[in-house]
Amino acid sequence: MTQTRKPTKPSPKPRQAQNPSFSTTGMKLIVPLQGVVQGRGGLLLGTLVPCALFYFFQLYLKRRRSNFSPPSPSSEPTLPRTSSRSSLSTRGAISRVRLSKLATQISRPEDSLYYVGLERVSRDPYHAVENPHGIIQLGLSDNKLCFDLIGDWVARNLEGTMSGGVGLGINGIAPYQTFDGVMELKMALSDFMHHVMGGSVKFDPSNMVLTAGATPAIEILSFCLADHGNAFLVPTPYYPGFDRDVRWRPGVDLIPVHCRSTDNFNLNITALEQAFSQARKRGDKVRGILISNPSNPAGNIMTQDMLYSLLDFAEEKNLHIIADEVFAGSTFGSEKFVSLAEILDSDIDKSRFHIVYGLSKDLSLAGFRVGVICSFNESVLAAAKKLTRFSSISAPTQRLVTSMLSDKRFIREYLETNRKRIRQVHDEFVDCLSKLGIECAKSSAGMFCWANMSGLIRPYSEKGEIELWEKFLSIAKINITPGSACHCIEPGWFRICFTNIELEEIPLVIERIRRVVESCNSSS
Amino acid sequence: MTQTRKPTKPSPKPRQAQNPSFSTTGMKLIVPLQGVVQGRGGLLLGTLVPCALFYFFQLYLKRRRSNFSPPSPSSEPTLPRTSSRSSLSTRGAISRVRLSKLATQISRPEDSLYYVGLERVSRDPYHAVENPHGIIQLGLSDNKLCFDLIGDWVARNLEGTMSGGVGLGINGIAPYQTFDGVMELKMALSDFMHHVMGGSVKFDPSNMVLTAGATPAIEILSFCLADHGNAFLVPTPYYPGFDRDVRWRPGVDLIPVHCRSTDNFNLNITALEQAFSQARKRGDKVRGILISNPSNPAGNIMTQDMLYSLLDFAEEKNLHIIADEVFAGSTFGSEKFVSLAEILDSDIDKSRFHIVYGLSKDLSLAGFRVGVICSFNESVLAAAKKLTRFSSISAPTQRLVTSMLSDKRFIREYLETNRKRIRQVHDEFVDCLSKLGIECAKSSAGMFCWANMSGLIRPYSEKGEIELWEKFLSIAKINITPGSACHCIEPGWFRICFTNIELEEIPLVIERIRRVVESCNSSS
Repeated sequence: MTQTRKPTKPSPKPRQAQNPSFSTTGMKLIVPLQGVVQGRGGLLLGTLVPCALFYFFQLYLKRRRSNFSPPSPSSEPTLPRTSSRSSLSTRGAISRVRLSKLATQISRPEDSLYYVGLERVSRDPYHAVENPHGIIQLGLSDNKLCFDLIGDWVARNLEGTMSGGVGLGINGIAPYQTFDGVMELKMALSDFMHHVMGGSVKFDPSNMVLTAGATPAIEILSFCLADHGNAFLVPTPYYPGFDRDVRWRPGVDLIPVHCRSTDNFNLNITALEQAFSQARKRGDKVRGILISNPSNPAGNIMTQDMLYSLLDFAEEKNLHIIADEVFAGSTFGSEKFVSLAEILDSDIDKSRFHIVYGLSKDLSLAGFRVGVICSFNESVLAAAKKLTRFSSISAPTQRLVTSMLSDKRFIREYLETNRKRIRQVHDEFVDCLSKLGIECAKSSAGMFCWANMSGLIRPYSEKGEIELWEKFLSIAKINITPGSACHCIEPGWFRICFTNIELEEIPLVIERIRRVVESCNSSS
Repeated sequence: MTQTRKPTKPSPKPRQAQNPSFSTTGMKLIVPLQGVVQGRGGLLLGTLVPCALFYFFQLYLKRRRSNFSPPSPSSEPTLPRTSSRSSLSTRGAISRVRLSKLATQISRPEDSLYYVGLERVSRDPYHAVENPHGIIQLGLSDNKLCFDLIGDWVARNLEGTMSGGVGLGINGIAPYQTFDGVMELKMALSDFMHHVMGGSVKFDPSNMVLTAGATPAIEILSFCLADHGNAFLVPTPYYPGFDRDVRWRPGVDLIPVHCRSTDNFNLNITALEQAFSQARKRGDKVRGILISNPSNPAGNIMTQDMLYSLLDFAEEKNLHIIADEVFAGSTFGSEKFVSLAEILDSDIDKSRFHIVYGLSKDLSLAGFRVGVICSFNESVLAAAKKLTRFSSISAPTQRLVTSMLSDKRFIREYLETNRKRIRQVHDEFVDCLSKLGIECAKSSAGMFCWANMSGLIRPYSEKGEIELWEKFLSIAKINITPGSACHCIEPGWFRICFTNIELEEIPLVIERIRRVVESCNSSS
């Protein structure tokens, strides 16, 4: 387990053309003119010295810039090929209209296998009756284990929620609301998080900004904490969605800090130090550290000691920490989850610490789109509140969720049952995998296991991993997430979500996995 | 009415420091070095020529850059004052963490009087019983005239909506949904828009991308159609929210095209041509035209002829058109609303046309956050779909709205009643204002009137207008929107929303306005 994927240049966007900025291109054009304009041998020195100076300066700028993978928005836009051709060839005719670099880039088919897999499922989704030979979705951490409880609660309480009480009738849902969430929901969510996080953290509702899911919460924080072209450090393997949330519109780069199987994929502060100092040497402006705790996809929980080390590191290097704690309540192991907020003593400057939470995982309400930014930075809160204009939760949902979270008895029962059911499925699933010779990293939380299938891949490389992933899709009709999509440095690891299938479907899933294992073993 | 506000440089952001890019700063430092390094008179020419060339180039770059008002994200971040001070004075201590330029800028108190007014109301809101001396909100186009109908419908249908049928129970709302909206809602919305737009337009649901309100729809389109630093032309007076939607995160500049009272604030193609060619001369990269039709705040409707002229102009200059048609169904005059989509013949390239719609205005559901992008550009649709991950509508709301829109009889009755009530209030309100000597621009749509109070302001300037606005807030305890917040070039015009008060409150509002009129007349 010591051979590793060749560490590539930190997170380049493969299909993105290098866009030297306008000014450096300008220099290239102008500097050679000197020789032409002058053309006299006696002036050679006067030409050479400034030329040399400018070329070195240009080289320096280029080195700085080439480390930034997001497209620099101040550089000249690249014409889509068809557009530039049509404007050349059909002089006088109507040109094809041009799009932004962002739209040109993201409108192309996906290249992350995480999304490719999701898309493949959407074209041929498994259904026990209607499509039994379809692809089973184990690539999305939807939690369906407690839909019965949620469904019952909604059926019992829906009408009361909207027609009065918390909702105050139609006047409470139809007009414009505070875009960063109604105070009642913030208070109810604060209580819920207190419960979920083991009773040791209590967020002040005035430090909370509600968003339409945790995804826009991370994007909004990226916009607030870093400028386009800046960077965050992020331990790998990491949730594939971070690339989308942080890079796409905020244009913030993600610098991987590789964690390894020998450490059970726990973060190592030395690796963090190294990644930071290498980034600094390249001229990257590192503004923060983005962590998911409990980790998605590895499922491990950061120890209190590690959190203190991170805190010290962030203070020493003057960095922000964004902690994505959306799986805080989905723990099933013996380890206790510790929130970043829990270790922030009153004597430190808390303004660099930001926590993201949501109800998609721990309360199984992914479709409701309820997320929250908890920050201790007044300016970040003020800016984030204004940005929720673009990502606000609809009022009927706010009322419904406020009511659900306020039902303390339901919440207590739900959380207990949910943890119990996740543990059951996890234990059974991991056990079955083990019997097939597939071992998982030791995990204590999440709705997935992080499975080591390096023994099944040939060659031992990203190529082998992708071939195995393709086998899972085509032979087993199962979508799982390959480690490469999570930027894992070791090939052969896969994230397998086990909470979006019915309990009784586990044997079917295991049977399908067995087919792949046998096919690999027979061909080797 | 010929004296106009002095046209300022197109939309500068007053508090934003000029940030010369890194490379131009670099040149300033290095160019003078040439003389120092060489120091020989004989080489004067060899030094002067490249120096001159570079200075001219630098000047050229600077001129280009100074026309862009959005902060250039690739330039060096400015430290907040307190931060730079603390890092100077507490050497060795922990530095204050820095934020992005965007967060630094938008976390400051608002400077647009549109938002200042809204904020003043939130601190002292009028309530007939609980706070009868509070500020009455006439600055927000919330439509409360038909809440009785909406409330009744929700009370009658809520339970059926979620517990089966359209919603398919909890499995239809709890898990992750398609982020750009479920097909059932797109189809229902397409039918609704067909009805609202007079039966002549029918959008294909596959050309629709649903968003959490029209606000993120405009932001997403800005991200797709233009790069940071590009610009859109926008006829004035315009909705103050456009500055937030287009400038903040997409970094797209808005170039005003001034419409005047002599044209009843209708767009003039010559003015559009002029604004475009001036922008081109300045080096601005104009990518599109952003219109609101029916106009917010002027309330007029674009004629079919004007739409054809716009179409020709957009084709000729290779521009996009974004038409914000959120007030399409809130017409009350004799003029018929014509959607941009209605004039797009089959033989033209439709890929430059994009329509924004939503349910906040015509269906009074601002709190529900339901918006839509209708585009004829496949790449824009593909990119926008991916970006709805950050602005999606929660599933319970999607189910509820699908159900409401599918109730054809309710929708027909609602739209009829709503138009009738808006017309009633509009006519009465405008009549009362007229009796006070305040005339409104002739309008046919919207939830506001565009009132000419230039006779009440001293001096006849933006200063006079702002003083009058302040009088309305302090003397009359009424919040209205001053024309300057809508970038109107003529001082003294105000947008007054009349649909977010109860019918019986009109006399109270008029009485309060009378106080201001009398105060102005007595002091003159």
